[in-house]
Amino acid sequence: MNQPVSTAIIGASGYSGEELVQLLLKHPQADLVAVTSRQHAGRKLSDVFPKFGHLPQSSKLCFSEPNPQELAKKAKVIFLAMPHGTASQYARPLLDAGCRVIDLSADFRLRSANVYREFYGENHPEPELLDQAVYGLPEIYRDSIRNGSLIASPGCYPTSILLPILPLIREGLIQASSIIADSLSGFSGAGRKTDQSLLFVECNESLRPYGVPKHRHLSEIEQEISIAEGNTTTIQFTPHLAPVNRGILTTIYTAPTTTFHSDQEMESLNLKIAEVYQKAYSSEPFIRVIQKGSLPDTKNVIGSNVIEFCWRLDPRTGRLILMSAIDNIVKGAGGQAVQSFNILCGFSESTGLL
Amino acid sequence: MNQPVSTAIIGASGYSGEELVQLLLKHPQADLVAVTSRQHAGRKLSDVFPKFGHLPQSSKLCFSEPNPQELAKKAKVIFLAMPHGTASQYARPLLDAGCRVIDLSADFRLRSANVYREFYGENHPEPELLDQAVYGLPEIYRDSIRNGSLIASPGCYPTSILLPILPLIREGLIQASSIIADSLSGFSGAGRKTDQSLLFVECNESLRPYGVPKHRHLSEIEQEISIAEGNTTTIQFTPHLAPVNRGILTTIYTAPTTTFHSDQEMESLNLKIAEVYQKAYSSEPFIRVIQKGSLPDTKNVIGSNVIEFCWRLDPRTGRLILMSAIDNIVKGAGGQAVQSFNILCGFSESTGLL
Amino acid sequence: MNQPVSTAIIGASGYSGEELVQLLLKHPQADLVAVTSRQHAGRKLSDVFPKFGHLPQSSKLCFSEPNPQELAKKAKVIFLAMPHGTASQYARPLLDAGCRVIDLSADFRLRSANVYREFYGENHPEPELLDQAVYGLPEIYRDSIRNGSLIASPGCYPTSILLPILPLIREGLIQASSIIADSLSGFSGAGRKTDQSLLFVECNESLRPYGVPKHRHLSEIEQEISIAEGNTTTIQFTPHLAPVNRGILTTIYTAPTTTFHSDQEMESLNLKIAEVYQKAYSSEPFIRVIQKGSLPDTKNVIGSNVIEFCWRLDPRTGRLILMSAIDNIVKGAGGQAVQSFNILCGFSESTGLL
Amino acid sequence: MNQPVSTAIIGASGYSGEELVQLLLKHPQADLVAVTSRQHAGRKLSDVFPKFGHLPQSSKLCFSEPNPQELAKKAKVIFLAMPHGTASQYARPLLDAGCRVIDLSADFRLRSANVYREFYGENHPEPELLDQAVYGLPEIYRDSIRNGSLIASPGCYPTSILLPILPLIREGLIQASSIIADSLSGFSGAGRKTDQSLLFVECNESLRPYGVPKHRHLSEIEQEISIAEGNTTTIQFTPHLAPVNRGILTTIYTAPTTTFHSDQEMESLNLKIAEVYQKAYSSEPFIRVIQKGSLPDTKNVIGSNVIEFCWRLDPRTGRLILMSAIDNIVKGAGGQAVQSFNILCGFSESTGLL
Repeated sequence: MNQPVSTAIIGASGYSGEELVQLLLKHPQADLVAVTSRQHAGRKLSDVFPKFGHLPQSSKLCFSEPNPQELAKKAKVIFLAMPHGTASQYARPLLDAGCRVIDLSADFRLRSANVYREFYGENHPEPELLDQAVYGLPEIYRDSIRNGSLIASPGCYPTSILLPILPLIREGLIQASSIIADSLSGFSGAGRKTDQSLLFVECNESLRPYGVPKHRHLSEIEQEISIAEGNTTTIQFTPHLAPVNRGILTTIYTAPTTTFHSDQEMESLNLKIAEVYQKAYSSEPFIRVIQKGSLPDTKNVIGSNVIEFCWRLDPRTGRLILMSAIDNIVKGAGGQAVQSFNILCGFSESTGLL
Repeated sequence: MNQPVSTAIIGASGYSGEELVQLLLKHPQADLVAVTSRQHAGRKLSDVFPKFGHLPQSSKLCFSEPNPQELAKKAKVIFLAMPHGTASQYARPLLDAGCRVIDLSADFRLRSANVYREFYGENHPEPELLDQAVYGLPEIYRDSIRNGSLIASPGCYPTSILLPILPLIREGLIQASSIIADSLSGFSGAGRKTDQSLLFVECNESLRPYGVPKHRHLSEIEQEISIAEGNTTTIQFTPHLAPVNRGILTTIYTAPTTTFHSDQEMESLNLKIAEVYQKAYSSEPFIRVIQKGSLPDTKNVIGSNVIEFCWRLDPRTGRLILMSAIDNIVKGAGGQAVQSFNILCGFSESTGLL
Repeated sequence: MNQPVSTAIIGASGYSGEELVQLLLKHPQADLVAVTSRQHAGRKLSDVFPKFGHLPQSSKLCFSEPNPQELAKKAKVIFLAMPHGTASQYARPLLDAGCRVIDLSADFRLRSANVYREFYGENHPEPELLDQAVYGLPEIYRDSIRNGSLIASPGCYPTSILLPILPLIREGLIQASSIIADSLSGFSGAGRKTDQSLLFVECNESLRPYGVPKHRHLSEIEQEISIAEGNTTTIQFTPHLAPVNRGILTTIYTAPTTTFHSDQEMESLNLKIAEVYQKAYSSEPFIRVIQKGSLPDTKNVIGSNVIEFCWRLDPRTGRLILMSAIDNIVKGAGGQAVQSFNILCGFSESTGLL
Repeated sequence: MNQPVSTAIIGASGYSGEELVQLLLKHPQADLVAVTSRQHAGRKLSDVFPKFGHLPQSSKLCFSEPNPQELAKKAKVIFLAMPHGTASQYARPLLDAGCRVIDLSADFRLRSANVYREFYGENHPEPELLDQAVYGLPEIYRDSIRNGSLIASPGCYPTSILLPILPLIREGLIQASSIIADSLSGFSGAGRKTDQSLLFVECNESLRPYGVPKHRHLSEIEQEISIAEGNTTTIQFTPHLAPVNRGILTTIYTAPTTTFHSDQEMESLNLKIAEVYQKAYSSEPFIRVIQKGSLPDTKNVIGSNVIEFCWRLDPRTGRLILMSAIDNIVKGAGGQAVQSFNILCGFSESTGLL
């Protein structure tokens, strides 16, 4: 067994950062040497998060101020788990110091600084790095991740939408512009922000949409669909919040490129879709295409790095409906980042994730 | 003040029936004289539902077996809160005995026995009564309800979809066939059934679709849209379950009949929609069209008979998105039934509902 | 029917204040003429709380700054729903202006300014008013409330503990010093504070004690038990938080003053206890003593002003166990305050509360 | 690394069984060769529990009928995760066939068949095996577990109570008869039973006691306290249910054997308690004694085999209060059973549990 790889997390006090801590502390090939947090600097990791107290490695870790130069001396791979706009200022010095960087924020997900400005309302702070960044969706960009130095780990909603959609787009089975993605998320997706609307009593027994009609994640969803399609595409996306801690359930409505008027045509299209997924995903460790009968449920994926999804053809409307479930904090954030970490370190992709 | 109207509830042990009990016990113009339940026959109402114990009228009520002849002697208006297929067998004898009947099941909502057979999988037990039944959506069928003898109170999902949609259809503002309705419901919608999938631990921290792509409520949604449109229409509808007790949140995607390419065209369409709703609903006591800024939230309507909804035009996709929230057990069941009761008794429509 | 009584609420933006708004808007004998909130001053009531939008009276109400002189001109009875320490500064000018004041904070619940200082950590801001204040537990102090000008509405935990305990203390059936009260509360009890520990994700799937061993409510619980006992008494009290919006469930362990070694002795003590409660509470509209079989459940009292409780003798340990359930925001706050309001206005005590 | 130990689970369809499946599938030294379930016999493990689908070993597993002779041929260690009364009939044939048995039911926890009859209401089906059984609380009975053939894994409530209490009893610091244990449990503790009172809507927003005053777990709690005390002891125990999936929070009220009237005496007793726990538990991998400031919270232990607890002396009442948190399905069931498995196989005790 090789020497473990030294890692650090900048911004380890939010929900994604906390999950990363857990995954890296349990990872047999990773050595977590530093965690930073402005809010908690100076406190022991296990004082802030008592649940890590029984993991042997946790006792040596204290939160520090985020100092890229210091961190670069200690760690080969650095995870950034900070709000967008903040992460990018750490990337440059870390890359210059020879670290490889896995960023969980939105800062390096878009190829275009203009699109960033349109969706995030400010100029991109490090536009020169955009070319260098790899969109860290392993099932699509595995080879680029392997050799990447700056990995932009995808958003939670985009992960739940792109994995079921992209193979169908690539094979020309659906009309990209017909896509309507309707998502439900748990409240960890809103982050550990002390906002009145996120108090328990305000969220429990509440169901609500938000960010209608132009949520920021649309930008990366459309970017990746456009790349797969070969054409600039605009889609519809609506997120909602429901009172669970974790989980995203997405239902996607699409128009197939072929119609199906008879049972036979429908069966033929079903077979075609099954083949496309079989070809794309049959050896993926974290994709579960539900074959028959049942529908996805977030409770099947909570705490795991798996996406499960299925599809239904509706002979009455001619539409193809896709439904997917992920844990927004694992496959939608920390777990997917560790999957990229495994790839760029040359480890088996599911190391520390099963 | 007039003499209160005598009422009875057949099937008062489910969630809708329980809500009806509460509403009628507190209703200043209703006298609840009988409640039936096969399961609880012989038990005091307040033994089965301790929460009613402090309402003075509750002490005299015991559950009895459902005997239509006996009930018809005691009560002028009878509510049926039973599963579909069961309710219809009580309607005939009650109507023959001169009662007015408000049915909360699906049995009399469809005008066509064929459509019933297609969606409910069995022959309609009382097809001759279908002509006589009025679809009990007060904001649409108020006049027919006033003189009706058999009111078919709408389903919860249809209520959340039809009220925002119908005025737009009638005014020709949207293409009916473009409608995609995506709904989220709390678990009371699934009924008080001892099914393993409805246990607390199976539902808490779970988000899931069901009934895809042909839920039974589609039949009445399409029926009412088709009537408003003047043409047979097929739409898309997907229900989901989320861990709340009460509430339905529905997001509806539609294509307007006019495009809007400039800000000016968009503003003009917005004004037109506002006018349509103003005309249709400005004096409705239970419809709240959210004017600006905020979006619907089920917590704003829990425990009340109100539907709140709003709309958004998306200039990027050209779609009109509608979002609505109701309490599935009140406006989606018991409250709406009492609203019809008020209409057919000639009471002020919000009596006992504010 | 008499003229409605004009009322105002100072501090209507917290959970108790919001409940008061609802109760007074629906109260047939109250006219809510003003609501104040520093945070929301200038906004319409129904913009801050959309759920009130369908109540006809809500449209005329806007939040204002809390100005006691202005309010005293408009309203005869003023409710204070503010944090402790803040409420007391409004009481004096309102009383001087001839208003009657119902305070939901802790400021006037204690008879001793010293005890206030011990438990609240600061000098009492208006000690001269303490003599004048009446502890607003209607079932115990009904007559004093009737003629009171300053009513100190009890805390939520004290309400759930005192109502089952006091009759037994008065009749000498239990040893006061043996009392251990273990309570579970929903998160509305913690108030609408933007504190990180109150975020949905931090509270959902969490069970935790707090305020051990000297929660502030101990002071009023011990005061009232001591008065009933005729001796200064110290008891044990531990509150816990559980992920529900509303509700307090309290389990109280006590030592009876008589032992029961045989079945006959136990039955005899059971009868005695039943008699004591019968005598104390049989005509109380909001007390439900569960007679047999079942145990209390907060879901039986949510949204109502009822306390339900029961007792069990344990022949193995010789203890008497009491268990009670209330809605902390209704019987534990707003509802109880309205009950006092009804008493001091001479209305039927359950007006607007059934 | 040694050859993995072959294992099987009889009764793998309940919540404890499901957790055992997960722990054993991920355990590096265990080979799970069979799972049984009458209800699911013939179905693939991953069809019943989709969440196991991505674990490589899950694909080979199908549920079978529970046949002890067949299972004994395949597996060296057999876990029984069935209701009490059922488990015991499998123990005899499995032990005769040379298997080691870890039983998660209550069948072998009590040393006395009479106490079993008193608390479980029926004769013990295999009283001869009681002498042979070891109470599987590793922190107390580690040596006996190592050589045991029949391990009776403790109940969830007893685990949360005994671990904080036993060291204090052994050192004579508290009066055993003073113990009052008040526990809060999530609904997985009630099992996967299709009972109307366990439906989501009946449990959500509900707080309730049950099993008052003589819950079955009292029998094993009293047995173990009596052994530690050297005298037969009777204690008080009240369980409650709160709407979380997992977790038990227990608050225990006790009378110390020494009084503490001054700050100095209190500090001295605090030091003594700290020493006792230090001596008993300082090298335990799954016990976290909270040193200062904070209180236990079930969210710190969910998904882990850790118990966390703390204590407080109350100078006002002279009592010592203990508060503990566990995951009822891990440390309270499946995790503790695997901890015993590790001991009897000679593995490091935390193998597969960190």
